[in-house]
Amino acid sequence: MSLLVVGSVALDTIETPFGKTQEALGGSAVYFSCAASYFTDVSLVAVVGEDFPKQHIDLLEKRGIDTSGLTRSSGNTFRWIGRYGFDLNEAETINTHLNVFEQFKPALMDKHKEKDFIFLANIDPDLQKSVLNQIDRPRFAASDTMNFWIDRKNESLKSLLKDIDILVINEGEARQFARESNIFKAARQILSWGPKSLIVKRGEYGSLTFHNHSIFAAPAYPLETVFDPTGAGDSFAGGLMGFLAKTRNLDTENIKRAVIFGSVMASFAVETFSLERLASLDEGEIYQRYRKLREITDFEDFED
Amino acid sequence: MSLLVVGSVALDTIETPFGKTQEALGGSAVYFSCAASYFTDVSLVAVVGEDFPKQHIDLLEKRGIDTSGLTRSSGNTFRWIGRYGFDLNEAETINTHLNVFEQFKPALMDKHKEKDFIFLANIDPDLQKSVLNQIDRPRFAASDTMNFWIDRKNESLKSLLKDIDILVINEGEARQFARESNIFKAARQILSWGPKSLIVKRGEYGSLTFHNHSIFAAPAYPLETVFDPTGAGDSFAGGLMGFLAKTRNLDTENIKRAVIFGSVMASFAVETFSLERLASLDEGEIYQRYRKLREITDFEDFED
Repeated sequence: MSLLVVGSVALDTIETPFGKTQEALGGSAVYFSCAASYFTDVSLVAVVGEDFPKQHIDLLEKRGIDTSGLTRSSGNTFRWIGRYGFDLNEAETINTHLNVFEQFKPALMDKHKEKDFIFLANIDPDLQKSVLNQIDRPRFAASDTMNFWIDRKNESLKSLLKDIDILVINEGEARQFARESNIFKAARQILSWGPKSLIVKRGEYGSLTFHNHSIFAAPAYPLETVFDPTGAGDSFAGGLMGFLAKTRNLDTENIKRAVIFGSVMASFAVETFSLERLASLDEGEIYQRYRKLREITDFEDFED
Repeated sequence: MSLLVVGSVALDTIETPFGKTQEALGGSAVYFSCAASYFTDVSLVAVVGEDFPKQHIDLLEKRGIDTSGLTRSSGNTFRWIGRYGFDLNEAETINTHLNVFEQFKPALMDKHKEKDFIFLANIDPDLQKSVLNQIDRPRFAASDTMNFWIDRKNESLKSLLKDIDILVINEGEARQFARESNIFKAARQILSWGPKSLIVKRGEYGSLTFHNHSIFAAPAYPLETVFDPTGAGDSFAGGLMGFLAKTRNLDTENIKRAVIFGSVMASFAVETFSLERLASLDEGEIYQRYRKLREITDFEDFED
């Protein structure tokens, strides 16, 4: 039972207007599982190289994350080198070394096949599909993707979507995928390809959730200090899926709550490099930001 | 009593990916007063040239707008020629002919000096100040501005802000004015210059309202068809100030309601060129969109 994530573990070298970090712990599965760990048990399936520091695995295990699905392969760990300008909404990739991640073929252990909430982080849609094919029981699956796969594996991606409960993608990617600049029309197009729900991430502008013919517009948490946006999207997904796996309630009202916990977890991820803040929260801080988001969005009917 | 707007009346020639219009009725005071006219009596102070078509004045008067402050000067009416690409958030100005607007010196008639809700649309901040100086009684004033005045009349603008209740500006202009990329820090900086409240317009992403140490994040109304964004900001201000002038209630909850009516009126403005849609609404449509905005933003506490 509970939550499984399949994705990347990386060493990130990042420069922002506010500082620099070298070979810091990163990757989609890392941000996701750390964010989700505040809500539920989470297991991670990913690959690292021989050079991957043990202290990073210790950090994940300290958060209660099951790392038994983290394979160590011969070669080096996936590395990403990136930069952000003052417009923190857009990362510039300086270099990507896929290393062992290039040969990643996720094979689930039996205990992982029993998980019923699955997050397929941004990897080749054929691999995402192969993960779902290893699970032959009812499950609730969400997936992410990126422009690269929208371009190169468009048909695989559309085929995957028929098996997906929630697709979680960036606004620019949604527009590109649907070939439509209006985001509401783009959402309608993407939903016609199969996913039950769609969440469009809009960076500092929050998110739009399309579910059961309803729209939910959620803001990002108001932050005066956004230090490094890396991992925001995966932390969002971790809060979302962590809360859904904990509450096991998929009605519209609960999905909205899950989206708000997604916003909250993303807000902690971007306040520091790597997991510095995200790995050391207490529950009170999380609930406080949830309540703050209610406060800043709530308004009354005009007749009151 | 009630509402006064001082701003521009223009003939707009606009090209968008969806169509073209020539010499259509536009201008900040026009969009503002038309949007506000659904809520309260509104008087317009502006200037046009000898060439200004009488049918446009008839249209405003049909909406109950007091046009006695619309001066006809010798010369031609202000013309704007602009274009939008698929990214409808940004207008490209092809040409501006200020014509009679260049010599605009707003002199209020006695009956207009009695208005107690004032909107100073985007004109030279020295002229905005001169309007306020003609009113020697308590009033509630909101103002707009633009990058041109932030650059050229920075000190005049800052001096004006000390007398302003709500400054309503675009996000990019807020960042430029404060010389700060983080919008929450930028807002704090701008508020330190004097306005009691600040509303940051974010186009399709809605708005942020800073009032009494609180933040209110409002979405834009979800539209599958955005035909021409011209006038969205002034229609937003018209809904906002129209509702405040009608209810005469300046507490935080009522300002939030006013912001939502702003979003609603902006959404009608962008569905067609000029005032085609905005001038022919019925009240039911306005209230329906208000309720829809409540529906798409509302979420429950996590313990319910």
